[in-house]
Amino acid sequence: MFIFREQTQIEDLGNGVTRRILAHGGGMMAVEVTFEKDAVGPLHHHPHEQLTYVLSGRFAFTIDGETHEVSAGDTLYKKPDVVHGCVCLEPGVLLDTFTPQREDFLS
Amino acid sequence: MFIFREQTQIEDLGNGVTRRILAHGGGMMAVEVTFEKDAVGPLHHHPHEQLTYVLSGRFAFTIDGETHEVSAGDTLYKKPDVVHGCVCLEPGVLLDTFTPQREDFLS
Repeated sequence: MFIFREQTQIEDLGNGVTRRILAHGGGMMAVEVTFEKDAVGPLHHHPHEQLTYVLSGRFAFTIDGETHEVSAGDTLYKKPDVVHGCVCLEPGVLLDTFTPQREDFLS
Repeated sequence: MFIFREQTQIEDLGNGVTRRILAHGGGMMAVEVTFEKDAVGPLHHHPHEQLTYVLSGRFAFTIDGETHEVSAGDTLYKKPDVVHGCVCLEPGVLLDTFTPQREDFLS
C-alpha cells in the first residue's frame, strides 16, 4: 500500500495539536502528530505498543515517570499500557507507529 | 525506552546503503536506512509486517509488482511476505518500522 502525503487528511485535535493518519494495514499504523509550542500530549496509556520518531522540533517526553528532552532523530519505544506524554518545547512533528492499529483513530 | 540519535551506530551495508537501528522492544523495531543516489534495496521478502516513512530523498519503490515514486512524508505498508524493494533516485533516508522485531538485524 502506497500512501502519498498530499492525499492524507489533517485532523485538528485542538489545543495546538493536529494529526495525519498515514499508511496502515494488518497490525500496524503510522500517524504524524504536529505540535505548536507549549502544546501538550497529556499523560495517557493504551494496550498498543508504540514507537515514536521525532521528525522535528523539541519535546520534553515522559515515559513511565522518566522525562528527557528529545529532538530530530531521537526515538522512543513504549510498551503496552505504559503511561506516557509530552510537552512541546519547540514546534515540531512526531511520527508514531502502533501495533496493533489504533482502531479508535479510524472510527 | 529513550534512544538518542547520537548514541546509535551506523552500519555500512555496502553499495551505498547504511543503517541505524533505533528504538526497539517488545514486538517493534525502528530502523533508519540511508541511500546514496542509484543505490538499490533489492527485491526481497520477510515474514515481518513493515511500515516505511520517507524521511528525505526520492525513491522508486516496488511493492508486489506495483512501482511508484515516493518522497518525503510518503508512507508504505508492506504485509508479511510481500515482495518489495527500491531504487534511490535522489539521496535520502527511509524510516522502516517492523513487527515483530528483525532479530536478524540484532545478531
